[in-house]
Amino acid sequence: MAKKYVYFFGDGSAEGDARMKDLLGGKGANLHEMTNLRIPVPGGFTITTEACVEYYKRDRQYPEGMWEEVEENLAKLERAMGARFGDPKDPLLVSVRSGARVSMPGMMDTVLNLGLNDVTIQGLIQKSGNERFAYDSYRRFITMFSDVVLGLERLDFEELLEAKKREQGVKLDTELDASALKELVAQYKARVREKLGREFPQDPKEQFRLAINAVFESWDNPRAITYRKLHNIPGEWGTAVNVQAMVFGNLGESSGTGVAFTRDPAAGEKRFFGEYLMNAQGEDVVAGTRTPQAIETLKEAMPAVYEELEEIYKGLEAHYRDMQDIEFTIQDGRLFMLQTRTGKRTAFAAVKIAVDMVREGLIDEKTAVLRVEPHQLDHLLHPMIDPKAKVKVIAKGLPASPGAAVGKVVFSAEEAEAGLAKAEKVILVRTETSPEDIGGMHAAKGILTARGGMTSHAAVVARGMGKCCVAGCGDITVFEGDGRFVTTKGITVKRGDFITLNGSSGEVILGQVALVQPELSGDFATLMGWADQFRRLGVRANADTPKDARVARDFGAEGIGLCRTEHMFFEGDRVDAVREMILAAELEGRKRALAKLLPMQKADFKGILEAMEGLPVIIRTLDPPLHEFLPQKEEEVQDLARKMGVPEEKLRAKIAALHEFNPMLGHRGCRLGVTYPEITEMQARAIFEAACELAREGKRVIPEVMIPLVGHVRELALQKELVVKVAEEVMREYGVRVEYMVGTMIEVPRASITADEIATEAEFFSFGTNDLTQMGFGLSRDDAGKFLPAYIEKGILEDDPFITIDRGGVGELVRIGIEKGRSTRPDLEVGICGEHGGDPRSVEFCHQVGMDYVSCSPYRVPIARLAAAHAVLKEQVKIVEMGEK
Amino acid sequence: MAKKYVYFFGDGSAEGDARMKDLLGGKGANLHEMTNLRIPVPGGFTITTEACVEYYKRDRQYPEGMWEEVEENLAKLERAMGARFGDPKDPLLVSVRSGARVSMPGMMDTVLNLGLNDVTIQGLIQKSGNERFAYDSYRRFITMFSDVVLGLERLDFEELLEAKKREQGVKLDTELDASALKELVAQYKARVREKLGREFPQDPKEQFRLAINAVFESWDNPRAITYRKLHNIPGEWGTAVNVQAMVFGNLGESSGTGVAFTRDPAAGEKRFFGEYLMNAQGEDVVAGTRTPQAIETLKEAMPAVYEELEEIYKGLEAHYRDMQDIEFTIQDGRLFMLQTRTGKRTAFAAVKIAVDMVREGLIDEKTAVLRVEPHQLDHLLHPMIDPKAKVKVIAKGLPASPGAAVGKVVFSAEEAEAGLAKAEKVILVRTETSPEDIGGMHAAKGILTARGGMTSHAAVVARGMGKCCVAGCGDITVFEGDGRFVTTKGITVKRGDFITLNGSSGEVILGQVALVQPELSGDFATLMGWADQFRRLGVRANADTPKDARVARDFGAEGIGLCRTEHMFFEGDRVDAVREMILAAELEGRKRALAKLLPMQKADFKGILEAMEGLPVIIRTLDPPLHEFLPQKEEEVQDLARKMGVPEEKLRAKIAALHEFNPMLGHRGCRLGVTYPEITEMQARAIFEAACELAREGKRVIPEVMIPLVGHVRELALQKELVVKVAEEVMREYGVRVEYMVGTMIEVPRASITADEIATEAEFFSFGTNDLTQMGFGLSRDDAGKFLPAYIEKGILEDDPFITIDRGGVGELVRIGIEKGRSTRPDLEVGICGEHGGDPRSVEFCHQVGMDYVSCSPYRVPIARLAAAHAVLKEQVKIVEMGEK
Repeated sequence: MAKKYVYFFGDGSAEGDARMKDLLGGKGANLHEMTNLRIPVPGGFTITTEACVEYYKRDRQYPEGMWEEVEENLAKLERAMGARFGDPKDPLLVSVRSGARVSMPGMMDTVLNLGLNDVTIQGLIQKSGNERFAYDSYRRFITMFSDVVLGLERLDFEELLEAKKREQGVKLDTELDASALKELVAQYKARVREKLGREFPQDPKEQFRLAINAVFESWDNPRAITYRKLHNIPGEWGTAVNVQAMVFGNLGESSGTGVAFTRDPAAGEKRFFGEYLMNAQGEDVVAGTRTPQAIETLKEAMPAVYEELEEIYKGLEAHYRDMQDIEFTIQDGRLFMLQTRTGKRTAFAAVKIAVDMVREGLIDEKTAVLRVEPHQLDHLLHPMIDPKAKVKVIAKGLPASPGAAVGKVVFSAEEAEAGLAKAEKVILVRTETSPEDIGGMHAAKGILTARGGMTSHAAVVARGMGKCCVAGCGDITVFEGDGRFVTTKGITVKRGDFITLNGSSGEVILGQVALVQPELSGDFATLMGWADQFRRLGVRANADTPKDARVARDFGAEGIGLCRTEHMFFEGDRVDAVREMILAAELEGRKRALAKLLPMQKADFKGILEAMEGLPVIIRTLDPPLHEFLPQKEEEVQDLARKMGVPEEKLRAKIAALHEFNPMLGHRGCRLGVTYPEITEMQARAIFEAACELAREGKRVIPEVMIPLVGHVRELALQKELVVKVAEEVMREYGVRVEYMVGTMIEVPRASITADEIATEAEFFSFGTNDLTQMGFGLSRDDAGKFLPAYIEKGILEDDPFITIDRGGVGELVRIGIEKGRSTRPDLEVGICGEHGGDPRSVEFCHQVGMDYVSCSPYRVPIARLAAAHAVLKEQVKIVEMGEK
Repeated sequence: MAKKYVYFFGDGSAEGDARMKDLLGGKGANLHEMTNLRIPVPGGFTITTEACVEYYKRDRQYPEGMWEEVEENLAKLERAMGARFGDPKDPLLVSVRSGARVSMPGMMDTVLNLGLNDVTIQGLIQKSGNERFAYDSYRRFITMFSDVVLGLERLDFEELLEAKKREQGVKLDTELDASALKELVAQYKARVREKLGREFPQDPKEQFRLAINAVFESWDNPRAITYRKLHNIPGEWGTAVNVQAMVFGNLGESSGTGVAFTRDPAAGEKRFFGEYLMNAQGEDVVAGTRTPQAIETLKEAMPAVYEELEEIYKGLEAHYRDMQDIEFTIQDGRLFMLQTRTGKRTAFAAVKIAVDMVREGLIDEKTAVLRVEPHQLDHLLHPMIDPKAKVKVIAKGLPASPGAAVGKVVFSAEEAEAGLAKAEKVILVRTETSPEDIGGMHAAKGILTARGGMTSHAAVVARGMGKCCVAGCGDITVFEGDGRFVTTKGITVKRGDFITLNGSSGEVILGQVALVQPELSGDFATLMGWADQFRRLGVRANADTPKDARVARDFGAEGIGLCRTEHMFFEGDRVDAVREMILAAELEGRKRALAKLLPMQKADFKGILEAMEGLPVIIRTLDPPLHEFLPQKEEEVQDLARKMGVPEEKLRAKIAALHEFNPMLGHRGCRLGVTYPEITEMQARAIFEAACELAREGKRVIPEVMIPLVGHVRELALQKELVVKVAEEVMREYGVRVEYMVGTMIEVPRASITADEIATEAEFFSFGTNDLTQMGFGLSRDDAGKFLPAYIEKGILEDDPFITIDRGGVGELVRIGIEKGRSTRPDLEVGICGEHGGDPRSVEFCHQVGMDYVSCSPYRVPIARLAAAHAVLKEQVKIVEMGEK
């Protein structure tokens, strides 16, 4: 049997349902589902994602039989609607929309009013008795079709529209009358002719075919590719095409269109939340060209419609057991649903909705935990504006995506990306954003737009990204070309000036404002409590100071997975003692300098161990190459020489002698400890003196000494011998015992490969996946910027391997390391302390390979906790699914 | 039953034999064997290596029961010799010598005349009736015992000896009479008292115990450790102790001692070859303090002894089926054998002796192949003095170790090692060498000594190292302190002056002389022919020019395993085109520059492919980072800017932009090809145009294109697609087909780990073990000099992993890579092109893991061929041994 490429829905029954998202796309599957639920949905059909995949496989040819199926379904739709496509008397008009498995705002979305031409418009006028409506539809059709199918600029037409409004002395397009719109249509067609050198397509079937092709092609446009990359959507999925009979929100003042959420997508409160516009088509609401009305006002304006809408949205939420994002059109007082989908929400709302729905009995705790994406928490966990800060609010817009952001103002996506490349914090300010801006929005700390509502592009995308956004800020006028914006109060903010955004209040604040961490209690704590019940992985934090350690503990860290001692070496005048040590020619001189460092290190360790009382603290011995501690600039060298009382020449010679071609692979890590055992000795003494002093106070402290950059078991054996010797010595001196372990970072590929040998000495492994990625991939993180973007663009790599662990290669080294390590020491404690430890997908991997814990930066601890719970729950889901098959 | 720690030999039978080397040490096992062969050997016993190992395990205590066994055996020896140890009337004297499994000249060797004291000497005088002999023996004993057991300086005593000779107006120690020697003994004892603050030990049992301890301890002295490192001798083996009744070569003019080889150890000729000294003990011959007589003269001096010696040496060679190095002593006209062992020989002699012995029917071809150590060939394959060169011979010494060497003169081991560290070629010049000089001898290109014979320390060690040596050059006087030597002709050569040594003729030549390659025919060709029959591994060469390719082919290379195309990029004015390409901002500019390079690359490839007609040639696409092609020095930058007609600032900016923190892990290898596909395209075109032109001439050429630094299969897939496209295009243009393959280097750890995926694209793998070691070990070769020596010294690493492949780690990555690669492509061609390809132990590894070939520098091709044969033959030996067990 030939493959079925088209699925029909209409008249209360549909060939598909909500479970068929892979085949029908998200939008399509839900249209079928709603039809089956007897919700009023205009009839139509869905061309499957498989058809799209085949289209690409066949070098951009429709799969065999597809077009025939499309024509059959079109005929069926004609019969259902009692109108014929292209009929000069009573033309059926359709909408054509793309719809992938998951919503992709960066893609070509919609062509409305398809089927109109110079002949069928007469039929539409006659049938509707509304010439204004017909020409309004035609001008819309030409604009959208030209934009998304013919590749012209929307601006080309908006220019003419604006001119016409000026000419007619009106402000809104709804104020243009039929003759003005008719003239506009003629101008539009002329503009198409002028730009393309050919007429606007008049054949409805040709329009239809071109629109289908455009949807298929949109799957591979650069915006869609960028979006897929940002959201890890496989390129092989393809998009479905939804064809639906048109219903018209622009038929006059008893018609309209709107979008709404079944709960507040920003705050998560259980209230109907949305906007609508009368006498408009859907695009008007989303584009933000007219400011829409709040959904509540519909209750008064059209009570019956509102009541029906209320019943439907409540039913949909109960049916889907999740917050829905819906689109509707009112045609002459009659309600039609055009879309329902799981609504995007802020992290804050996600947590609240998930916890509320458990309380409401809609979902269970596991589902609630799975409802919040770990990476979303990043948003919640980032600083908010300090309530005690004095702020100068210069404008106010819509609180489109909460959180706060401080940065320099930029006016284009390119500038934002350039800023990111220079590690600058920037705020992207635009009149309104479009899918072209996605890269820049990603790069910016926050987004400010002058136009658009809570469901405008900027707002939706920013919420998806968990990024602070103030949208529709009518108080400002943006002059992108000039690089400035001006507030209604007359304040000018130029490119490079600092502003602060409060995405929760919509305030735009001049200058840099202090930010603080929000309280992590209430629903958040409830949800995290559930997550903690489900997860198997422990979560520790990477922290180098007592302060960070306390923050980490507040965030739920169950220990310190990495305390980098070198950070302590740089602080204040300690670096002088370090430099003295480096410059000492003899062991004795080095020991003298180290003796100065000992009390400082000891105080640091004491602070951290105390903050983590009762929990393990992994302290890594000195890691970076010594040249990092010496100055490079000529004047700094002169200063230092004076300070140290050494000849400049001697200092320069030392710096030159320490120079390395590849410092990453040079004299660092345990190699320092092997060549200068006195450094390890000093550090071990500082650790155990700190621990013993606390132990004498009756505190339980658990230091774990970690030797970095071990590639050979004998390196570890030598360093361990030293640490154990000092530990035993110090404990004898203090007359107390502390629990401790000596282990190693696994960050050199050879260490993974020989982990069985290394585990004979190591009591724990901590995978340093930053360096393991650098060495395993042969990729210097500092230098990869020159080619890694090309690698991702050309599809060589799906992800930046420094963000998400490369499972096939580096991950395999981790797997081998764990397996081999446990083969000789079954109770080996295994964790990760690379930055991957805070990346949700990498955390899932760590769970799968059987680590004991992950360790990440304090602010990512809750993300890791949630990701660890997801890893367990997804495994259970998989087991259930396998059981069902 | 308790372990047996002591084995007796004497009176025509022995408890051990030659097969027991592991237990009795080489020297001991052969003493037992000779005893069993009824060869006259002074009786004695051997304390086993196990006793030594136990001694260390028990924290420097004798194992239980050992001392009792020693006493029993001493009593047995007393009975056999009819004399008692410490007997004031007729004292038994013994020698105590160390003896590991293999000969280790760096270790404590011998204490002779042990058992003498102020009382027993009277017995010796009485018994021998020779007071002079007795005091000569006593002064020797004090010197040796003080040196090797008490830790004093030999020089302390030699000073006194020299003073005594001056006082007596004699030149040789044999000219000192009894009373002078008696006085000397008194002075020696006083010197010991003065230096140690206690008397020279008088109790023979204490002497004995101290000597045994000293032998055990000598196993761990720094010289021995260095020697073991240089020769890869495990530290766990331990040494045996041989105790033998003394026979005396210093009993007068009918006594003497000598060392000899059963064939010429330098030239390999079948003739008895050795030296002896009358009225001397063994140390006198080896130390080179008196110049000994050639062995032939013994025939006249003592015909009966010579006849017996001849019979014994011939018997020993026939028995051992190998050239023997023997030591003997004549006591009052009676011959005693003190040692036989396999004689060290030059590479030249090793080849000749092996081939001769096959012709003589003594050994088979396999044994002959195994008789020549692959690394020895290095010696044969290195340049000799150009026979056409005009040389200024300033002195002549003994041709102690053949070959030629050019270098700057240095006068101490430290200077030699410092020179090596600066990559300077140095010649070590010493009056005579001692075991302390081993490191320096290793570092030097050649060794020149003023004193000592063909069996002096310098000569033996140099031959073992395959290093050019002129020994016993009486024409020169060395003033180490002044840093100069002066010839008898009055020429002064100072530190840093260049000299050339001819180790085959003994000539010392002023200045730098041109060297040439010897002919590789005759016995060498015969032996290599046998080796080729046995080996399974193919051997290719790394060559970048047609000239190198021809040299390689002459040396037996069966293809090119690595042709580095970047070398061609540096040559002459090509680098200008390369720089033009780098500086071009746009693709078009790069293509223009590449078009200039195309004909040059093509000509190179044509030359190499032609030289290797009929054999495969692996050509690697561009590998180094682009910044390597740009100048760094300010004036060069200015020059280039002028030349290229670009502003200096622009050039500097480009250089800065290309700077990398870790170039090893940066934008190089296939990453260049991915970001600049036009480079790969140009190179592919050059390769295939060259190949097609040759194919049109009817020549069979087999290019194999190798993509470097692949870490992910998709990198290779992209580059391969490009190469195949160009190859097919060019072949169409030329209307011919050439066989070709596209493969990859496996040099990134991730490539090994994902070799199964990579092999789906790669038609061959070539392991780039240089980079694989750098990345797998996290070790930058350029920077490792700062800590690798400490690593080897502290025993963390046994070998420099850049010389001999690290089997446990990097080797494991290779093994995994091969296994995974063949899992998806069973006929995958696998080779190695890192420098390990020319290291014998690494070649053995390559054989064991099932590679198809190794590739190395042209001059190492014969070494690899022989090593590959050894790998097979050793496997067979192992199988036979396992079968026997």
